[in-house]
Amino acid sequence: MTPADDDLAPVRRVGVTRVSAGARAEIVDAAATEEPLDVRLHGRSFAVIMRTPGADRALAAGFLFAERVIRSADDIGAVEHCRHPDQRRAHHVVDVFLVGDAASRVPAMLESRRHLVANSSCGVCGRSTIDELRRDIDPIPIAWRVDVAFVRTLTGRLRGTQAAFDETGGLHGAALFSRDGRLVASAEDVGRHNAVDKCVGQLLLTPPSAAADVLVVSGRVAFEIVQKAWLAGISALVAVSAPTTLAIELAREAGITLVGFARGDNLNIYSHPERVIDGV
Amino acid sequence: MTPADDDLAPVRRVGVTRVSAGARAEIVDAAATEEPLDVRLHGRSFAVIMRTPGADRALAAGFLFAERVIRSADDIGAVEHCRHPDQRRAHHVVDVFLVGDAASRVPAMLESRRHLVANSSCGVCGRSTIDELRRDIDPIPIAWRVDVAFVRTLTGRLRGTQAAFDETGGLHGAALFSRDGRLVASAEDVGRHNAVDKCVGQLLLTPPSAAADVLVVSGRVAFEIVQKAWLAGISALVAVSAPTTLAIELAREAGITLVGFARGDNLNIYSHPERVIDGV
Repeated sequence: MTPADDDLAPVRRVGVTRVSAGARAEIVDAAATEEPLDVRLHGRSFAVIMRTPGADRALAAGFLFAERVIRSADDIGAVEHCRHPDQRRAHHVVDVFLVGDAASRVPAMLESRRHLVANSSCGVCGRSTIDELRRDIDPIPIAWRVDVAFVRTLTGRLRGTQAAFDETGGLHGAALFSRDGRLVASAEDVGRHNAVDKCVGQLLLTPPSAAADVLVVSGRVAFEIVQKAWLAGISALVAVSAPTTLAIELAREAGITLVGFARGDNLNIYSHPERVIDGV
Repeated sequence: MTPADDDLAPVRRVGVTRVSAGARAEIVDAAATEEPLDVRLHGRSFAVIMRTPGADRALAAGFLFAERVIRSADDIGAVEHCRHPDQRRAHHVVDVFLVGDAASRVPAMLESRRHLVANSSCGVCGRSTIDELRRDIDPIPIAWRVDVAFVRTLTGRLRGTQAAFDETGGLHGAALFSRDGRLVASAEDVGRHNAVDKCVGQLLLTPPSAAADVLVVSGRVAFEIVQKAWLAGISALVAVSAPTTLAIELAREAGITLVGFARGDNLNIYSHPERVIDGV
């Protein structure tokens, strides 16, 4: 999808199957870049943040300030991109060095984060997580196909489940449907990830009346939502808004059909468009 | 703001100062509830998730599945709300018990998370974090006032900084302004929190030409965004979309003026409306 030298651009070109009323075309569109940034404190990994490249040094400083590792600008000795000879890799690493009292607190801070950073199943570690998922889980086969007319109904049907959104405008919604159109689970939450976890959790707690084939979400799709869908064996993911580059990349690996900007008759298919057919 | 028995409702009533063209009224509106959920594994805290109450057992099961603690429904022995006699508190705790091989992995899983859960500065621990912030940081005084006409310009000015959003529709934006209207910092990112951290980080790396008085964000406002603003000493927070109940509660504690649904001439002021005046 991405030429190597595009690695640091905040926006990348992606191939998309654009479907509108009566037409289907292969086009090139733009997607927001999502890549992991490794924030290191005195040379050791403190946190891995999924981010859009750009202002990485500011992100590292602001993140450490919000985590109260840095209390003021005076605590900062240096904030710099890693000097590793592999420049592409180095640009996804920021080294932070503190001075004074803040420096003396670094060993304890690193110790308190050690297990967090080591746990690559937490969904934040990006590429290493993709490698792990690829090793552990098979891609989802193209075992069935769905009519585009059905896909067009899904964001409207999700909207119909969002009672609390109607009242507040402040909640994300998620819903699971079977391939033959039955609503299997739905949930609302202030957190996008929570809404998806609630849907998948419902299937674990109560065996559903039909298989959960399609996940529909009210917002955007980043890496972690695709990861959750893959783990749950869901074949298609339909979103009202945009996917990130890493979400698209993971969906292609996973055999998941990823649909974005599903609004009215129009939708963009970012991966495995062969699962969506026109008319039956 | 909230009667005690509302604690578990997904939506709560909040007092709002609604400003429209030429009018200002005190009304009661609805906001999405945000409260911490403590997910316990075999009686010990595994994670604290900021969530909207409802389907808490499903959320706990789905979260543990996404974290790969649970591999299938067969791993689950029980998922139940805590039986603590204080029912209000108990409803924010879900106890999970695993069986078979999954049960034998629990001690190692808890060990790997110990430091994460203990670290209440991580922004996910809700009420205990509010208590800690209140102890450590003074509320921001009402030291200056701003004209509502100025506030109305801010989301449009933020939008003007969002070059990558224009291309992709998939990025959040944040910007900092001085009280006299100067743009002090701006950033875009796939993560809402990252966009704010990038803005605050810019101030730490390069002393700004003016004080950062107002934070403007493109999306919704949950607890953690208000926390970041308070830590950075920012007096006012203006959002295009809705705030959560916990964001409103923290803004009231912090002395921060929280404005939501800032669209055209209309805006909702959820806290400290005395900082916003009509005409000067």
